[in-house]
Amino acid sequence: MNRVNALTQNAFEQKGFDGFLISNEHNMLYFTGCPGLACALIPKTGANAVYVYSVNYEQAKAEAECFEVKLVKRGENLIEKLAKQVKAFKIRKLAVDELSHENYRNLAKQLRGETRLKLQGDLVWELRRVKDEEELKLMRKAGELTTEGMRVAYEVIKPGVKEFEVAGEIEYAMRKHGCWGTAFETIVASGVRSAFPHGGCTDKTIRDGDLVVVDIGATYCHYRSDMTRTLVAGKPSEKQKRIYDIVRLAQDKAFQAVKPNAKAKIIDAVARKTIEDAGYGEYFVHGLGHGVGLEVHEPPTLGPESKDRLMIGNVVTIEPGVYLIGFGGVRVEDTVIVRKGKAEKLTNDFYSLEAEK
Amino acid sequence: MNRVNALTQNAFEQKGFDGFLISNEHNMLYFTGCPGLACALIPKTGANAVYVYSVNYEQAKAEAECFEVKLVKRGENLIEKLAKQVKAFKIRKLAVDELSHENYRNLAKQLRGETRLKLQGDLVWELRRVKDEEELKLMRKAGELTTEGMRVAYEVIKPGVKEFEVAGEIEYAMRKHGCWGTAFETIVASGVRSAFPHGGCTDKTIRDGDLVVVDIGATYCHYRSDMTRTLVAGKPSEKQKRIYDIVRLAQDKAFQAVKPNAKAKIIDAVARKTIEDAGYGEYFVHGLGHGVGLEVHEPPTLGPESKDRLMIGNVVTIEPGVYLIGFGGVRVEDTVIVRKGKAEKLTNDFYSLEAEK
Repeated sequence: MNRVNALTQNAFEQKGFDGFLISNEHNMLYFTGCPGLACALIPKTGANAVYVYSVNYEQAKAEAECFEVKLVKRGENLIEKLAKQVKAFKIRKLAVDELSHENYRNLAKQLRGETRLKLQGDLVWELRRVKDEEELKLMRKAGELTTEGMRVAYEVIKPGVKEFEVAGEIEYAMRKHGCWGTAFETIVASGVRSAFPHGGCTDKTIRDGDLVVVDIGATYCHYRSDMTRTLVAGKPSEKQKRIYDIVRLAQDKAFQAVKPNAKAKIIDAVARKTIEDAGYGEYFVHGLGHGVGLEVHEPPTLGPESKDRLMIGNVVTIEPGVYLIGFGGVRVEDTVIVRKGKAEKLTNDFYSLEAEK
Repeated sequence: MNRVNALTQNAFEQKGFDGFLISNEHNMLYFTGCPGLACALIPKTGANAVYVYSVNYEQAKAEAECFEVKLVKRGENLIEKLAKQVKAFKIRKLAVDELSHENYRNLAKQLRGETRLKLQGDLVWELRRVKDEEELKLMRKAGELTTEGMRVAYEVIKPGVKEFEVAGEIEYAMRKHGCWGTAFETIVASGVRSAFPHGGCTDKTIRDGDLVVVDIGATYCHYRSDMTRTLVAGKPSEKQKRIYDIVRLAQDKAFQAVKPNAKAKIIDAVARKTIEDAGYGEYFVHGLGHGVGLEVHEPPTLGPESKDRLMIGNVVTIEPGVYLIGFGGVRVEDTVIVRKGKAEKLTNDFYSLEAEK
């Protein structure tokens, strides 16, 4: 309930709302600990409740902490049911985290004249972007599991192996160590496809001399991790080594610069300048990183346009890259916790352009 | 381009729109063949274009078929850029598949007075719910890969094994045979947790006599599959056998009833009546099934409230279940194609409550 209290403290006491509707699935998980809900309603005066269809009703009763569990029966309309409850609670100013345009319009119509509706998703992100100790424990575990997967990537990548076979070995190792699933679609992109930052994982056979970008993440208790290494199947060329060293240097400099209150765009600039100075600036085609947690892409954003500042308890990726069309790409990425002193890496501190012999 | 033509035929010729904005990621994949796009704009007069951020720009240029590729540069606002283009094309009535309330409001504001904006996602679903031969080929492959995973489930489930270990073996087998990833989070829910339809997959050890619900799906070339079997670790009890037989009979009767033009709610009723007649109606807590394709839950819906009719080329799941809190659950599911004659199963025709000895 600390999380709900923190939300209502801000939304109700500071901002003058008297109700908060949560409908984003990750936000519901964050506040209730339970997956599979339809939505959650937090009134200023009255009992907090989650709404759930019959398929997940029994599970919600067993798992939703500190919330009443209301069944949305067959034939009932969720938006109508919610609107009735909002009126019964006499909520005048209802915050909502996010809604599709269709649902927003329907709800606003039902509430017309009695309750004002306003998008306030940022108030939830203010909480979610700062991880508490319980969350950090789970994220450390997710990082360890991801590291186990990457260890296997270095073992199995060699000329003649297919990309999806590598993915299979990585995911198998993560599962063996207890992971709940992958945090996103595993990327094992080799050769010219490694120049596409989201090159995926195909039935392509990895060839001698291919750059291979391996971007993976394990999920543990709903928390995610994100890690990339780039390696060469066979002996790296001088050009591959040069680009790798630039990216790795940019990543390390950015990592060293991570500290509380730093502007996120400055951390991006540290990496970007390193790559620009080496003459590859135009090939670093994305931001430096992003927050990670219950989702794999969260605030804060580390990029040239970011207005965010880093805060203690943020968990972010540091992932510069250089992508040369027709040649291949290099990206190196770790997930790190912003801490009082030096940042803490959740993914392991092993870097090499060469697979195991 | 056949898919774009089918859309514009309906939206432009029949409904009087003169532009269509596609922003749902699966819809973009459906029309362009390319992942990672920001949106796609199809004008009645002018060139079709996809909009993409720099991170995926090169990949879109290589993979987006029959669309111009427009880069959304750093610092550019996508909604503003789109609104400008809509005005340049003199689009007066713009259909859009779906948008968050925030984006809809912003776009409507930019277009005010010049272009009417209207949600028309159903026009895309009219196309996507009927799979063409190319799609069916990919879905058959996804079904085969899922079947390979299920084969392994029957091999490895025994007392003493952990749920996530089973999931790891299943996913590994699917990957070995060439799958692109899982269609959804693998469910291996045993014992009392099997009574939760979405019980997930934990570090629980499977015990002798546990019911184990295994609900899995492989993805192949972005197309998904969905299959459930329920088995017992060890020797099934009489009650487990009785409930299994009821569910299996309900599933087979519903499968036999699948035919073009059938009301979806009637197929649901066939299964539901079988379970009700056996005295377990109140424990079948969800609809009978759903469409599958680029997403794992699509139209049409097979449930008591459904207004859908089945059509040739629909791909749907048939998945009745009975869930007894404190005892366990049973669900049996296949993915099937609605065809002129008998429906075609994409997942295999093997059913057993008993694991391999």
